[in-house]
Amino acid sequence: MAVNLPTPNPRDLHPVPGVRLGIAEAGVRKAGRRDLTVVTLAEGTQIAAVFTQNRFCAAPVQVCRKHLAAEAGIRALVINTGNANAGTGDDGLARAGATCSALAQQLGLAATQVLPFSTGVVMEALPVERIVAGLPAALADLAEDHWLQAAEAIMTTDTVPKAASRQVTIDGRTVTVTGISKGAGMIRPAMATMLGFVATDAAVEPALLRALVAEAADRSFNRITIDGDTSTNDSFVLIASGQAGNAPIAQFDSADGALLRDTVIAVAEQLAQAIVRDGEGATKFITVQVDGGRSAAECRQVAYSIAHSPLVKTAFFASDPNLGRILAAVGYAGIADLDQALIALHLDDVPVVVRGGRNPAYREEDGQRVMKQSEITVRVSLGRGSEQATVWTCDLSYDYVKINADYRS
Amino acid sequence: MAVNLPTPNPRDLHPVPGVRLGIAEAGVRKAGRRDLTVVTLAEGTQIAAVFTQNRFCAAPVQVCRKHLAAEAGIRALVINTGNANAGTGDDGLARAGATCSALAQQLGLAATQVLPFSTGVVMEALPVERIVAGLPAALADLAEDHWLQAAEAIMTTDTVPKAASRQVTIDGRTVTVTGISKGAGMIRPAMATMLGFVATDAAVEPALLRALVAEAADRSFNRITIDGDTSTNDSFVLIASGQAGNAPIAQFDSADGALLRDTVIAVAEQLAQAIVRDGEGATKFITVQVDGGRSAAECRQVAYSIAHSPLVKTAFFASDPNLGRILAAVGYAGIADLDQALIALHLDDVPVVVRGGRNPAYREEDGQRVMKQSEITVRVSLGRGSEQATVWTCDLSYDYVKINADYRS
Repeated sequence: MAVNLPTPNPRDLHPVPGVRLGIAEAGVRKAGRRDLTVVTLAEGTQIAAVFTQNRFCAAPVQVCRKHLAAEAGIRALVINTGNANAGTGDDGLARAGATCSALAQQLGLAATQVLPFSTGVVMEALPVERIVAGLPAALADLAEDHWLQAAEAIMTTDTVPKAASRQVTIDGRTVTVTGISKGAGMIRPAMATMLGFVATDAAVEPALLRALVAEAADRSFNRITIDGDTSTNDSFVLIASGQAGNAPIAQFDSADGALLRDTVIAVAEQLAQAIVRDGEGATKFITVQVDGGRSAAECRQVAYSIAHSPLVKTAFFASDPNLGRILAAVGYAGIADLDQALIALHLDDVPVVVRGGRNPAYREEDGQRVMKQSEITVRVSLGRGSEQATVWTCDLSYDYVKINADYRS
Repeated sequence: MAVNLPTPNPRDLHPVPGVRLGIAEAGVRKAGRRDLTVVTLAEGTQIAAVFTQNRFCAAPVQVCRKHLAAEAGIRALVINTGNANAGTGDDGLARAGATCSALAQQLGLAATQVLPFSTGVVMEALPVERIVAGLPAALADLAEDHWLQAAEAIMTTDTVPKAASRQVTIDGRTVTVTGISKGAGMIRPAMATMLGFVATDAAVEPALLRALVAEAADRSFNRITIDGDTSTNDSFVLIASGQAGNAPIAQFDSADGALLRDTVIAVAEQLAQAIVRDGEGATKFITVQVDGGRSAAECRQVAYSIAHSPLVKTAFFASDPNLGRILAAVGYAGIADLDQALIALHLDDVPVVVRGGRNPAYREEDGQRVMKQSEITVRVSLGRGSEQATVWTCDLSYDYVKINADYRS
């Protein structure tokens, strides 16, 4: 079902020196699937992360924040699918902590050097004993070239594993940026999506890494929506192992800093778009561009209003150029002093609306032609400023309902 | 498909002296259906209305506002289905005005004494000539007991006509309140829904009528949502013909004023709930109550977050007590300092969540029992104040997608 999203070729996923990944079957929710991932990080690795803004954030998110604040030097991640350990109260915190302790013990680390991540069903107790029992197999599987296997092991309703990788030259060294992500529903990240991991072997100063993870999230995962439901578990992690041996990058306004930033953002954007392409039930990939706004924030507000409208999304599913639904979503986006007489709307290259009304030259068959495509750009011009914003989303199909009605059964 | 919503019995719909309704086939969009309604109002009738907050409000909404502001004394309404005359720019305004002029001419009125209402497809030109050609038949059909016929003639994707009626004694006179509504999709009224008309023969002072239409909208149509899409055409009209002969009601804090207010609100609430019961594809009627908030506004914010979540709505459709989705929606409702450890959740009488985690005594089969019902109450306690709010919604089913994917074909 995924829209123009092939399974990555393992040969295209460059290993990141200093980062090893191991996968195992722990039987967290279902038997016979690899649902446990351990990632180990070489000594000296820098890490930065952003998490969901959902106030009902999951236990692993709370433990991650605590362990990052302890500044003991993160050396391992433990990731399970099948159970999100969210809405689980104090018991959930204890179970996330116990998972970290068990992995720390086997690696000779402190528990605060381990970050836990969980995805899957909400409000059920995390089966810690099964995860702990699976750790030795995951550790035995550790290898630098297991990115694709890890991308598979973090899937829930995803239909395609998501990974991206690039190499650039920095300070005379080949530097790699490789990442994976998952997520197909409960997707409207308010910080990052559940889950994205990007690693580089570049050496980067800690403060710059924290700035970069926030900027990359804002320009990738924070621009997508599938159903408007912000997850309890969203986490986006950026890892810099430093093994490339370059002089540590301390600012973006150097050539090397700019190149690393662009590369990380490009990988994050590809991973974020992959989540939309594999959105639950998705048959179309939609880019919503809003320009002519007084601020980027109001452009984003209008773009999300369009991208969240069930009526707009079902029209895309039906390939029906019922474009008045887009105007309605612009109108209720909450811009109090919007003047409808200034609005223009394009569907790809087709000017549909001018000055707030139907373009006299618009022909239904032109709209129909664009709506039948698997990739469509909606462009709304607000006519009141020079700012713009872009959001990516997908359509709403029978299969979205089917997948979410059947999810736990 | 409508949830516990029978077709009204015409004998239960009391005529309102001074208000006559006539219906005709105008062929606005489809042949062979009654799609045009004219309502005439006796001299001296007071009228007040509230309209959509959508900035892309439709041409008829703009004309209504202009004609109400002219204070010429509204004497007639003209309502078509099949075409919403929205997203139509200046041409749409001209067409709505021409419809009013044509009816005004036949009734010997000024155009500003007529209010136009349109519902149906957005962004297509209103076929004024067909509506004007249908007016004589509608006028010939005028009668005080045609409320049910009018309720049928304003339907779009509605499956059941919606009407409600009550009688009370005020100032020694029998006073009637009768109303109709329509709407099944693009429903998240930000003022009133498209369309609601309530009439009484009580005499009411104009200022009080304006206060009452706002309060009734806020306590009925502004508490419902089907898909979160605020329509371009929402209109709620309250008519007081004064024919009951009571002393004009000038304030709510008299016994008569309070009784009229309660009666109008009860009728409006029944009409608003009828819209949800007949929501596109609805199989369940859901009441979302949020209490323990610091303000009614934050309770409403949380209630709408739950009521708009596609994941929550598909879980209701599936009768699956996947209640973590409700917690997630509480968490992303935008209450910045919400403490998840204080949250409680009930499903009807079943305590599911206590102190932010799963109630140890909760059994899946108890949740399952409630979820299988056709009427369900979700109650969330925020544990931070004493305010509350209620919102009514429905589930999200295959048929919602089907109806909206097929709407124009």
